[in-house]
Amino acid sequence: MSEKQKQSNSQLFHYNEEVCESNYYLSEDDIMSIPLDHDKFYWLNFHSFELKEQIQNSYKRFDIHRVTQNDIAQLKERPKIEEFEDYIFVTLKSIFRKKGKAQVEQMSFVLKDNALISYQERHGDLFNEIRGRLKNNTGIVRTKKVDYLLYLLIDAVLKSYQNELSDIQKRIDDTQVVIHRDFNESFFNQVEKYKDELKLLKKSLSPLRDQLVKLSNSRNRFIEESNIPYYNDLKDQILYIFDEIDEEKSDLESMTNQYFAVLSQRSNEVMQFLTIVAALFIPLTFIVGVYGMNFQNMPELQSEYGYYVVWAVMLLITIGLILYFRKKKWF
Amino acid sequence: MSEKQKQSNSQLFHYNEEVCESNYYLSEDDIMSIPLDHDKFYWLNFHSFELKEQIQNSYKRFDIHRVTQNDIAQLKERPKIEEFEDYIFVTLKSIFRKKGKAQVEQMSFVLKDNALISYQERHGDLFNEIRGRLKNNTGIVRTKKVDYLLYLLIDAVLKSYQNELSDIQKRIDDTQVVIHRDFNESFFNQVEKYKDELKLLKKSLSPLRDQLVKLSNSRNRFIEESNIPYYNDLKDQILYIFDEIDEEKSDLESMTNQYFAVLSQRSNEVMQFLTIVAALFIPLTFIVGVYGMNFQNMPELQSEYGYYVVWAVMLLITIGLILYFRKKKWF
Amino acid sequence: MSEKQKQSNSQLFHYNEEVCESNYYLSEDDIMSIPLDHDKFYWLNFHSFELKEQIQNSYKRFDIHRVTQNDIAQLKERPKIEEFEDYIFVTLKSIFRKKGKAQVEQMSFVLKDNALISYQERHGDLFNEIRGRLKNNTGIVRTKKVDYLLYLLIDAVLKSYQNELSDIQKRIDDTQVVIHRDFNESFFNQVEKYKDELKLLKKSLSPLRDQLVKLSNSRNRFIEESNIPYYNDLKDQILYIFDEIDEEKSDLESMTNQYFAVLSQRSNEVMQFLTIVAALFIPLTFIVGVYGMNFQNMPELQSEYGYYVVWAVMLLITIGLILYFRKKKWF
Amino acid sequence: MSEKQKQSNSQLFHYNEEVCESNYYLSEDDIMSIPLDHDKFYWLNFHSFELKEQIQNSYKRFDIHRVTQNDIAQLKERPKIEEFEDYIFVTLKSIFRKKGKAQVEQMSFVLKDNALISYQERHGDLFNEIRGRLKNNTGIVRTKKVDYLLYLLIDAVLKSYQNELSDIQKRIDDTQVVIHRDFNESFFNQVEKYKDELKLLKKSLSPLRDQLVKLSNSRNRFIEESNIPYYNDLKDQILYIFDEIDEEKSDLESMTNQYFAVLSQRSNEVMQFLTIVAALFIPLTFIVGVYGMNFQNMPELQSEYGYYVVWAVMLLITIGLILYFRKKKWF
Amino acid sequence: MSEKQKQSNSQLFHYNEEVCESNYYLSEDDIMSIPLDHDKFYWLNFHSFELKEQIQNSYKRFDIHRVTQNDIAQLKERPKIEEFEDYIFVTLKSIFRKKGKAQVEQMSFVLKDNALISYQERHGDLFNEIRGRLKNNTGIVRTKKVDYLLYLLIDAVLKSYQNELSDIQKRIDDTQVVIHRDFNESFFNQVEKYKDELKLLKKSLSPLRDQLVKLSNSRNRFIEESNIPYYNDLKDQILYIFDEIDEEKSDLESMTNQYFAVLSQRSNEVMQFLTIVAALFIPLTFIVGVYGMNFQNMPELQSEYGYYVVWAVMLLITIGLILYFRKKKWF
Ligand SMILES: [Mg+2]
Ligand SMILES: [Mg+2]
Ligand SMILES: [Mg+2]
Ligand SMILES: [Mg+2]
Ligand SMILES: [Mg+2]
Ligand SMILES: [Mg+2]
Ligand SMILES: [Mg+2]
Ligand SMILES: [Mg+2]
Ligand SMILES: [Mg+2]
Ligand SMILES: [Mg+2]
Ligand SMILES: [Mg+2]
Ligand SMILES: [Mg+2]
Ligand SMILES: [Mg+2]
Ligand SMILES: [Mg+2]
Ligand SMILES: [Mg+2]
Ligand SMILES: [Mg+2]
Ligand SMILES: [Mg+2]
Ligand SMILES: [Mg+2]
Ligand SMILES: [Mg+2]
Ligand SMILES: [Mg+2]
Ligand SMILES: [Mg+2]
Ligand SMILES: [Mg+2]
Ligand SMILES: [Mg+2]
Ligand SMILES: [Mg+2]
Ligand SMILES: [Mg+2]
Ligand SMILES: [Mg+2]
Ligand SMILES: [Mg+2]
Ligand SMILES: [Mg+2]
Ligand SMILES: [Mg+2]
Ligand SMILES: [Mg+2]
Ligand SMILES: [Mg+2]
Repeated sequence: MSEKQKQSNSQLFHYNEEVCESNYYLSEDDIMSIPLDHDKFYWLNFHSFELKEQIQNSYKRFDIHRVTQNDIAQLKERPKIEEFEDYIFVTLKSIFRKKGKAQVEQMSFVLKDNALISYQERHGDLFNEIRGRLKNNTGIVRTKKVDYLLYLLIDAVLKSYQNELSDIQKRIDDTQVVIHRDFNESFFNQVEKYKDELKLLKKSLSPLRDQLVKLSNSRNRFIEESNIPYYNDLKDQILYIFDEIDEEKSDLESMTNQYFAVLSQRSNEVMQFLTIVAALFIPLTFIVGVYGMNFQNMPELQSEYGYYVVWAVMLLITIGLILYFRKKKWF
Repeated sequence: MSEKQKQSNSQLFHYNEEVCESNYYLSEDDIMSIPLDHDKFYWLNFHSFELKEQIQNSYKRFDIHRVTQNDIAQLKERPKIEEFEDYIFVTLKSIFRKKGKAQVEQMSFVLKDNALISYQERHGDLFNEIRGRLKNNTGIVRTKKVDYLLYLLIDAVLKSYQNELSDIQKRIDDTQVVIHRDFNESFFNQVEKYKDELKLLKKSLSPLRDQLVKLSNSRNRFIEESNIPYYNDLKDQILYIFDEIDEEKSDLESMTNQYFAVLSQRSNEVMQFLTIVAALFIPLTFIVGVYGMNFQNMPELQSEYGYYVVWAVMLLITIGLILYFRKKKWF
Repeated sequence: MSEKQKQSNSQLFHYNEEVCESNYYLSEDDIMSIPLDHDKFYWLNFHSFELKEQIQNSYKRFDIHRVTQNDIAQLKERPKIEEFEDYIFVTLKSIFRKKGKAQVEQMSFVLKDNALISYQERHGDLFNEIRGRLKNNTGIVRTKKVDYLLYLLIDAVLKSYQNELSDIQKRIDDTQVVIHRDFNESFFNQVEKYKDELKLLKKSLSPLRDQLVKLSNSRNRFIEESNIPYYNDLKDQILYIFDEIDEEKSDLESMTNQYFAVLSQRSNEVMQFLTIVAALFIPLTFIVGVYGMNFQNMPELQSEYGYYVVWAVMLLITIGLILYFRKKKWF
Repeated sequence: MSEKQKQSNSQLFHYNEEVCESNYYLSEDDIMSIPLDHDKFYWLNFHSFELKEQIQNSYKRFDIHRVTQNDIAQLKERPKIEEFEDYIFVTLKSIFRKKGKAQVEQMSFVLKDNALISYQERHGDLFNEIRGRLKNNTGIVRTKKVDYLLYLLIDAVLKSYQNELSDIQKRIDDTQVVIHRDFNESFFNQVEKYKDELKLLKKSLSPLRDQLVKLSNSRNRFIEESNIPYYNDLKDQILYIFDEIDEEKSDLESMTNQYFAVLSQRSNEVMQFLTIVAALFIPLTFIVGVYGMNFQNMPELQSEYGYYVVWAVMLLITIGLILYFRKKKWF
Repeated sequence: MSEKQKQSNSQLFHYNEEVCESNYYLSEDDIMSIPLDHDKFYWLNFHSFELKEQIQNSYKRFDIHRVTQNDIAQLKERPKIEEFEDYIFVTLKSIFRKKGKAQVEQMSFVLKDNALISYQERHGDLFNEIRGRLKNNTGIVRTKKVDYLLYLLIDAVLKSYQNELSDIQKRIDDTQVVIHRDFNESFFNQVEKYKDELKLLKKSLSPLRDQLVKLSNSRNRFIEESNIPYYNDLKDQILYIFDEIDEEKSDLESMTNQYFAVLSQRSNEVMQFLTIVAALFIPLTFIVGVYGMNFQNMPELQSEYGYYVVWAVMLLITIGLILYFRKKKWF
């Protein structure tokens, strides 16, 4: 079943409290003959954009505006919720990892009075649990209209964001640990990569958040009064995700500050060592240079204790400089 | 009593102006048999989420929406105030210190016409004083409806934030003092830690603030007109806390600026010393090098006063450089 | 035809579902005799501001307010959408590349009940496809009022922004690649140039975005209810462009951060090498200086193994310093 | 009189256009017997919070809500304007200098239909001029209701902020002058101190500004229509103060930028000098080191003109390096 | 005439479509006897605040509120537009250059039903063209009410800002050019000066902008419906100026970034040169130092080819270091 499902490119559920049937591999005519009567609910799902004729027929059958058609087809659409006379249109991005990189995929939903049509680029397993609930009559999904089903679908998408975010959070926490151990250029690349992933999340969700806030403040005939709390819950989830993203961003900033502090601390230490070594030896090297000169008439050179006096002078200079440095707290 | 209270995992107050009774260790049936008559008020408090059945029964008894049930159970919920037809739902984070680190705990409240149900993760002593007020009929709490009781509970939570904040403020002020005494890497770790704690406060309170501002501008049947000023006062408190947090954040920024100024001042001083020592001795060391050469034909070496002339020249160069540095105000 | 069109400085379309005629090189009288009856729609387009009399007549014929006249004539007008009693006035900037530099050109539109008048500085090929659609009755343009035509024109302008942006994005991605290969001053000039181009886009579109958001929330008699979704689509497009611009800006910032990280890494490496070389040799050079002194009484010089002892001492010092550096993790 | 006034801890004015009486040292009974008739206006002022009983009685006499009582008593209250059914409550901070440091003091006002009650921590001379106006019937204060009196009091407080701000501005301008003369660590301390003072002003006024903006947009029965312009004027003043504060903040930023520019310019100059001196002498010192070696077989040493040739070579190297530096524009 | 006008300190125009008279040097009585009939319009202009009595009379004659009187007299008033029952009050800052420095001057306008009173600090030539239009009946000014005249006056003020801004823009562009030619401390002073001038513009216009936006959204009886587009145009102009100011500010930021990039590039180059020179010669100088020692027993010194071997070793070391540097891409 799961294997078949994976390969099916379209699926139709019709259900009410008593029954639930599902069909796969819908033909163009199947689409056109979906009944619009109100004793059952319909969930029509496309997992591929290659079924051009079926999708065209779904537009016709459910009376979908040309602008919405474009929004569904154009896969770079900005997430949004748009109310039309006959339906509510929702388009959003779901997130998944591919080759270790966060990626987004566009999904579109058309919510009509008793039908929900969803369009996805590929067959994912994000909604499997919801398909199960429908078939096995788990929870309240079959006692509710399709607006509740739409809530469950969006909820599943937001949950995938929360999983992705938890993943990023764990990796950021791991990076935090290495700061005091290891220094290298790749730290910055790492931080910039995390920032990029957080930005991707934010960019994908930010338009949706604004629309969900608006939706939870307005009323329309497609979402039942009694289901409003569920949509409020979506809004809460998305606000929560934004709080977490902001926290991670500020964690990254804080890590970078600490990294630079440690780095500049270390660099200061090195420089200070050099400075002190240089400042101590430069005058001494000059002095020994003086008595390395070959003038014939240099009285000190003939003096029996000259050599020892020079050593004494150099020792005094060294001690003087060290005391001076100590007083200045330079080391 | 206090000991017993500590171990109790649930508690029910029923009170009015005349009487106040309280019960502990409520069974599942106790919950279901709480009368809903309007001549008394009820405060039902759970201090543990292990009483699964009792909590389930409280949901049934007080007709609490599935979404609210999830919000109560999911301990990472974002603070919020949500109005339902039958009740107002409030969820927030209280703050406490554990092992020297600020931590937050989730609390949820359901305010019905004459009942208040509260759900906490653990038994704290934050509300002890309010329990005492109820029992001993101190103040006006028993002359008021449960909305006033809810005000007192939230007020107690906000007071715990103010205490936590005062604590952070004191520690920041202590850090300030050391800036000019002591330099070390740990300063930045300290500052980042304070920033993190302030961010935790801000994150925990910021959603609540928005909701309290909204609440104090709207009207609903659960909060009596005459109690609105109390809720305005909560809003004032939270805005005050935000002012203080912002001030501390800018204090930390200012401290960091000063720390860097002192640091770079000191580093400049060291470098300048090295620069001057090096610039003075480099030419002199060259000169003594010249007369350390072993050419057979170097007339100066035979000159009787050559050695003294070289000293004079080196003295002149040193004086010239010092004058040049002085003119340039390099030291 | 395309050649003729290119050189024409004015053009009038009159069309309805059945017919579509177009005239070029309109005289002053042609303008004044445009019929205002409602069985056809009119699109009058000027491609040059040198036709002073014709443009003046268009103001008279279509009853255009003095303020609008100024806005059309003054080519530095800020993009905006302004509602008048008799018409909606739209002025915006289209973007094009000239000599490798992004440039903007002002366009103005007056939307009346059944006429659209457009004013451009020069004849571009931005609208050729739309002219074709009108003539060949492609799509639904001839079944709709002139508000749909205006939508198509603005849509074409926004598409040109998207193309320009894609172009910038590609060039930014190319620059990204070179960061780790090649360092030079021109990197910053490049980044500043990209920032400037993004700012130009933002500045040209930002007022329009605010106006389109406002327009999509209001209603007026010039835009039919059924065409509102098209205008919402324009708003979506412009918001999408802003998302992309913000992403590019943050990419540039991220690139600059990485560039600086690599740069300072390299500079640190160089300094550290120098520091270590200097710190190792400075004491040794002092020692050899000591035994280069010419004192007559220096016992070490007479010692048979003195020279080898000095070498041994210097070796020990070098090893000691290297061990110290290793311990300090300086290299 | 002024001496007596200074020591009085409470004061009651009752006045109308014809008469004005004032009493000091009010007893608890004095407070309770203040008549509430509407042919006169009352201004009751407390200058100390030690008169606990009198203040309690004022709460009773004028029917002041428990929340307001707390707000008056708690001296860290956030500035605000709050409308109650019976009165408007205003609490704000006045500013004064004490030991060369800006300090704030809390003041609270209760505006009733014909009475104004004010609570201050200490007796200041901020309101002396207004007291004189009342007594001597200067201006229009006695022809107006107590709302005009409240305006005058708030106006006096805002004027004290403007004076404080002018003072800060003068000191900032003085600091500006020294930038190019004198460098020291204390500059940053100075700038941080100014910033702190500006922040104190901003923090004390910012909540009040929001409230005044709101008040000037709403209507209530305590402020007469004809007096609204006066309250608008307060709003203007406070907005003006914010403009000035922002300007000063940006002046401080600009000063800091210039200070750093001058500093880094100077530090660059020093480093460049050292660099050039070092780069010139390092090769020369090597050369003279070469001919200081004691090899028996060094043909150059025997050459008659060897010494002069070495000088020539060193001169050529020096000239070459100088030309190279010039070409590179390094000095 | 222009000379006389320059010296006049007050001027009254009364005009309608047919006639226009103007009087200068108005006495106190002249002011009081200005007729208020509605068949003509009046523009009363004061160019000096020394005419205390005349100005006082204008307040009386036109029934101007005490608060407005203060706003007119206090020359540091914040720009604003305030609606009163009888008039609209506008106060703003005009800009002019004096001794090469941008300066602002306050202007106030009172717009009544058929009279406009304007108060200026000094006689400028900003409004000469408008005076000419009135006298010569150019344009539509005499066919319109005084609200159109007020539009023209504000328009003239905004035009003066645009001129000032163009001037600043030109100077900024000139500074841009020198970045790559010339480095000196004065660059930062220059940039800070431009920033200050842009801030002055912004500060003077920003309150006015907010008020114009508000005005263009509201309706009042002093501005005729048909003149609203003119006031919208003022709003457009001011928004355009803000766009330009923001662009210039970001240009300055970009210039500063580039300046620092060039500076640090150059400083890096110098340091790298020194580093390489030092790192090459330090080991060599040590080697020649070794053979400058005077030990009696140093076998190498006796070796016939010792000197040449040392040269060879030094050459090898130099080549090795250069290869190492090349490999590390340090030069
Ligand atoms: Mg679209
Ligand atoms: Mg976004
Ligand atoms: Mg978290
Ligand atoms: Mg984290
Ligand atoms: Mg953190
Ligand atoms: Mg929830
Ligand atoms: Mg949540
Ligand atoms: Mg408070
Ligand atoms: Mg504080
Ligand atoms: Mg503090
Ligand atoms: Mg501070
Ligand atoms: Mg215009
Ligand atoms: Mg803009
Ligand atoms: Mg789009
Ligand atoms: Mg993208
Ligand atoms: Mg990109
Ligand atoms: Mg990125
Ligand atoms: Mg309070
Ligand atoms: Mg504040
Ligand atoms: Mg003002
Ligand atoms: Mg000022
Ligand atoms: Mg200043
Ligand atoms: Mg700034
Ligand atoms: Mg300045
Ligand atoms: Mg004023
Ligand atoms: Mg300024
Ligand atoms: Mg402002
Ligand atoms: Mg304009
Ligand atoms: Mg420009
Ligand atoms: Mg520019
Ligand atoms: Mg630019």
